[in-house]
Amino acid sequence: MLYVADSRERGKALKEEIESRDVPAWYVELWGNYIVATPPGSRLDGLKTPVKAVVELKTEYQLVSREFKKEPTPVRIGDREIREGKIFIIAGPCSVETEEQILKTARFVKEAGADALRGGAFKPRTSPYTFQGLGEAGLKLLEKAKEETGLPITTELMDPEDMPLVAKYADAIQVGARNMQNFTLLKKLGRVGKPVLLKRGFGNTVEEWLLAGEYVALHGNGDVVFVERGIRTFDKTLRFTLDVGAIAYVKQHTHLPVIGDPSHPAGDRRYVIPLALAILAAGADGLIVEVHPDPDKAWSDAKQQLTFEQFAELIHKAREVARALGKG
Amino acid sequence: MLYVADSRERGKALKEEIESRDVPAWYVELWGNYIVATPPGSRLDGLKTPVKAVVELKTEYQLVSREFKKEPTPVRIGDREIREGKIFIIAGPCSVETEEQILKTARFVKEAGADALRGGAFKPRTSPYTFQGLGEAGLKLLEKAKEETGLPITTELMDPEDMPLVAKYADAIQVGARNMQNFTLLKKLGRVGKPVLLKRGFGNTVEEWLLAGEYVALHGNGDVVFVERGIRTFDKTLRFTLDVGAIAYVKQHTHLPVIGDPSHPAGDRRYVIPLALAILAAGADGLIVEVHPDPDKAWSDAKQQLTFEQFAELIHKAREVARALGKG
Amino acid sequence: MLYVADSRERGKALKEEIESRDVPAWYVELWGNYIVATPPGSRLDGLKTPVKAVVELKTEYQLVSREFKKEPTPVRIGDREIREGKIFIIAGPCSVETEEQILKTARFVKEAGADALRGGAFKPRTSPYTFQGLGEAGLKLLEKAKEETGLPITTELMDPEDMPLVAKYADAIQVGARNMQNFTLLKKLGRVGKPVLLKRGFGNTVEEWLLAGEYVALHGNGDVVFVERGIRTFDKTLRFTLDVGAIAYVKQHTHLPVIGDPSHPAGDRRYVIPLALAILAAGADGLIVEVHPDPDKAWSDAKQQLTFEQFAELIHKAREVARALGKG
Amino acid sequence: MLYVADSRERGKALKEEIESRDVPAWYVELWGNYIVATPPGSRLDGLKTPVKAVVELKTEYQLVSREFKKEPTPVRIGDREIREGKIFIIAGPCSVETEEQILKTARFVKEAGADALRGGAFKPRTSPYTFQGLGEAGLKLLEKAKEETGLPITTELMDPEDMPLVAKYADAIQVGARNMQNFTLLKKLGRVGKPVLLKRGFGNTVEEWLLAGEYVALHGNGDVVFVERGIRTFDKTLRFTLDVGAIAYVKQHTHLPVIGDPSHPAGDRRYVIPLALAILAAGADGLIVEVHPDPDKAWSDAKQQLTFEQFAELIHKAREVARALGKG
Repeated sequence: MLYVADSRERGKALKEEIESRDVPAWYVELWGNYIVATPPGSRLDGLKTPVKAVVELKTEYQLVSREFKKEPTPVRIGDREIREGKIFIIAGPCSVETEEQILKTARFVKEAGADALRGGAFKPRTSPYTFQGLGEAGLKLLEKAKEETGLPITTELMDPEDMPLVAKYADAIQVGARNMQNFTLLKKLGRVGKPVLLKRGFGNTVEEWLLAGEYVALHGNGDVVFVERGIRTFDKTLRFTLDVGAIAYVKQHTHLPVIGDPSHPAGDRRYVIPLALAILAAGADGLIVEVHPDPDKAWSDAKQQLTFEQFAELIHKAREVARALGKG
Repeated sequence: MLYVADSRERGKALKEEIESRDVPAWYVELWGNYIVATPPGSRLDGLKTPVKAVVELKTEYQLVSREFKKEPTPVRIGDREIREGKIFIIAGPCSVETEEQILKTARFVKEAGADALRGGAFKPRTSPYTFQGLGEAGLKLLEKAKEETGLPITTELMDPEDMPLVAKYADAIQVGARNMQNFTLLKKLGRVGKPVLLKRGFGNTVEEWLLAGEYVALHGNGDVVFVERGIRTFDKTLRFTLDVGAIAYVKQHTHLPVIGDPSHPAGDRRYVIPLALAILAAGADGLIVEVHPDPDKAWSDAKQQLTFEQFAELIHKAREVARALGKG
Repeated sequence: MLYVADSRERGKALKEEIESRDVPAWYVELWGNYIVATPPGSRLDGLKTPVKAVVELKTEYQLVSREFKKEPTPVRIGDREIREGKIFIIAGPCSVETEEQILKTARFVKEAGADALRGGAFKPRTSPYTFQGLGEAGLKLLEKAKEETGLPITTELMDPEDMPLVAKYADAIQVGARNMQNFTLLKKLGRVGKPVLLKRGFGNTVEEWLLAGEYVALHGNGDVVFVERGIRTFDKTLRFTLDVGAIAYVKQHTHLPVIGDPSHPAGDRRYVIPLALAILAAGADGLIVEVHPDPDKAWSDAKQQLTFEQFAELIHKAREVARALGKG
Repeated sequence: MLYVADSRERGKALKEEIESRDVPAWYVELWGNYIVATPPGSRLDGLKTPVKAVVELKTEYQLVSREFKKEPTPVRIGDREIREGKIFIIAGPCSVETEEQILKTARFVKEAGADALRGGAFKPRTSPYTFQGLGEAGLKLLEKAKEETGLPITTELMDPEDMPLVAKYADAIQVGARNMQNFTLLKKLGRVGKPVLLKRGFGNTVEEWLLAGEYVALHGNGDVVFVERGIRTFDKTLRFTLDVGAIAYVKQHTHLPVIGDPSHPAGDRRYVIPLALAILAAGADGLIVEVHPDPDKAWSDAKQQLTFEQFAELIHKAREVARALGKG
């Protein structure tokens, strides 16, 4: 249940009143509202504190649901905005490797029309023996790229202890697929003060993904962008199975933005462009895509990163498709 | 291995010569070629019969592979053609129910711009207690719809014994997902003389799907259209997980047409249009989509069939996306 | 709904009466009962024909459900019986290859304690270029093995046209995983007069598997044995993922026997024995396992067939586990 | 590559020498060995520091592999040991709820023959609105249960910040399925000084699971127990699909213990016992199972926790099966 108050004071009073009836309650300010949230289904009558609105929802997720908030919520990343009706493109290498690599990429993707630069400094790797990212040195290189191009930066946070460090450099913080249900991390991101790009776990349902977003929102951060990046299925033709149905569904069930990552499901740059276009055609508000000046020599994900030439082609086609869909 | 001869006689002589060396061989005339096929990897030297071309392939499927035949192969359905660079739309109800239902649908989809009419007369149903289709009576109603609208007919064949009957009425024969590895049926369809729309099994890999097409081609029928319709995964948000990655992959690996079915993966008409557009954006050559004059009263798949209004909207958007992709 | 009559005449009268009310009805004699089946949920009141029992079921499958028939149903295969409380072992090569191969195997598995001999004469193969089985010649070799050892024979039927031929030789007919939803075949097997070993499709749910058994039973054949053989999942460590949970579930929900095939999920003989024991511990009534005199030279499934030595070890361990479970 | 030295000094010298050649190297003391590990495949010749043994492995995981260490490694939990050839039973409620609940359970499972007590104090919950565990208060209740019964305690750690706290109370630390690839947590557990029960992620491959164990070992902790608890598949008959094939495989490929959790895949107490027996028959070294004094009133996982009566039945049957498998 969501109880909306018309001021912080009333919200907090409401929370206390509800808790005094032995119902758990959370107070959170989001999207211009003063909200008290209680577990779905726990309707209370006869509250004394005045309530502006009471929203009873059928689903388990509440704050992020489109039933609660009808109009789409834009999310600011640096000086830009991901929002419905437009296409937002985040591009950059899998990992930050060298100054030359990241600057070259930043310049190119900026020129080609990207809205933000991605690059991994802390890398979640399946094997402990592979490159784990440059760490803070990588973040500093991203800062340089931002200074030069003006592109906002998105990068992944793995360790909650690194949150202040990563938040200092990043305009948006990525949560990787393997951490989508790292509830400790999600709760802490409620207080990070930066937007969160929440990748869907490759073994997670759409419901769980929305609930992971609910964790972040309920703990105070309403700037959540959902990122579909493919799930695990029996078919191994490509690296993961891109779930465009999830995009179509989530667009109708949350007011927050949804974007897609075509690089990880493709696993091979030959298939990235068609997957990117499918993501947009399914209704996503943008893309996050891997681009590298010399992909075959990349320190991670070498096969799937786009060349500059391919990225330019993708941008061109993405714009055509966006126009066909009536988007700016 | 594929050995291409320059005449039927030489082809048959070649087959005999190869078999005399204890290597299995098939003779088949396809796409204007006289072909002797042997199992992949069974290269033979010193053949006496002259050979126009020898094609050694790395994959298990041969005849249907784009390595063997570079240029795309169009497939005729009635007086129309599914081919690369255009969008072919097959529409109609899940099941043929009544004369009024099928005629009304045929008229509407024709008007809206469909290229062919679908309708099930023999229905594969999970439960033996549900409607199993009208059988031949359904085929006759499809014939009536064709007479009136001129639209070619596609319908499913389940029982090999019904092949002559179905082939009499249908311009293209659908193989359902549950029969994709019904090898008995596939072999018989090699001799049916009508194009085959080969749905991917919901539990089958892309490789198996291409090999199912290879069965049909090797047994004499080169008019195969691959139809992606979603696979089974752990996520049950929608009915099946549409695999647009498979479309992107298969388009690059076969010369035969690939289309997509957005209705079955959606399972709910609210998600059919975005899935349909994603199918096209991923590179498919067309769509097969369920439409019904009054979907809520349909005898099968009631939730997922489009209304006429939605179908008109789909056609409009599909054309915009096709144009954005440079298609006619 | 299941209406049980006390004679064939009353059953048929009941069927007519029900149909006269526009409810579909099937008449079938099974397990000593005269049964009229109607779609689940279609309860009728005020029937004139006397009814011995009316069974209303919550699930979609009816005849095969344990709610309908509480006591377990044994199934005869030749002169033996698969039944609850005992372990039934079917063993033999993937494919019948030569007289020597099948006779040698039959003698060995008989000696070691197997209850029936398996061997494929019609083989469903993913690729059209691989060995498709010896056909009738294979069936004749199986007959020879039966004459010599007395072991009943189980073998797969693929083409409904071959049904009389296969039924002539086989004591039980296998339906392969790829044909589990070949409804044409299932219906025809209702009249085959031999027990059916119904493998679960690797992409099929437990509900669909039970409904496939319902097809066979509803069309007249109550001798159905359910065979779990692994499903497709994202994990490819072994060939398929053996679903012991399905065995545990099906044992509680059907009165018919359930056995397991450890060979196909293992895909490698090193893992066959632990999987076989897990099948039994989960509650299965037996095993169907691949054994070959010289597995590395087998014409199909070379990696997963057990050697004679391994089979003897399996039988020994299976007996120990059966005893621990209180089985004979 | 693993280089084994005969002393700490030589090991550290070796690490320096290898790193001086620009090859990454880790030094770790495990299972009585002084080991320098380098990425698989990075063989070096002409090392000056004497090496006791060099082990080149084909797989990505090294330290945990049975190729590296042939004899099985027992893992101590409190005053007991999980080891090959015996069955180790961990039992207890999903969550610690009240003093009465945990004490009652501890007494009962001790009496029935359990080797350790489980109980969650920090609970990873899909929804932020559900009970998240008692936290430290829960740990204190576990301590009380341990004092009274002598049973060692296992409990889950979610937040790396809580590591000292949890390690103070727990005899073994559980890593939940959702955290299996929380690499930050895994690395920190390398220094925790307590054994780790590493649950397999429900969306993770066996290879990834072994590599997660490799993370813990490479960072200093060789006391890792692998816990299979079911994976996500298309079939939802039970809550998860227990993967007994993974147990059979991992038992042959690691020297560390492997146990199974039948409660989470079952999702319903009616299926827990057959799954538990299947786990043992597949070769596992033990079980971790949920038991509750009044399961229907449990604060989490109410459906799947065993009653005391069922747990006693399970222990009895598990012993019979263990004996059949030649285990003590």
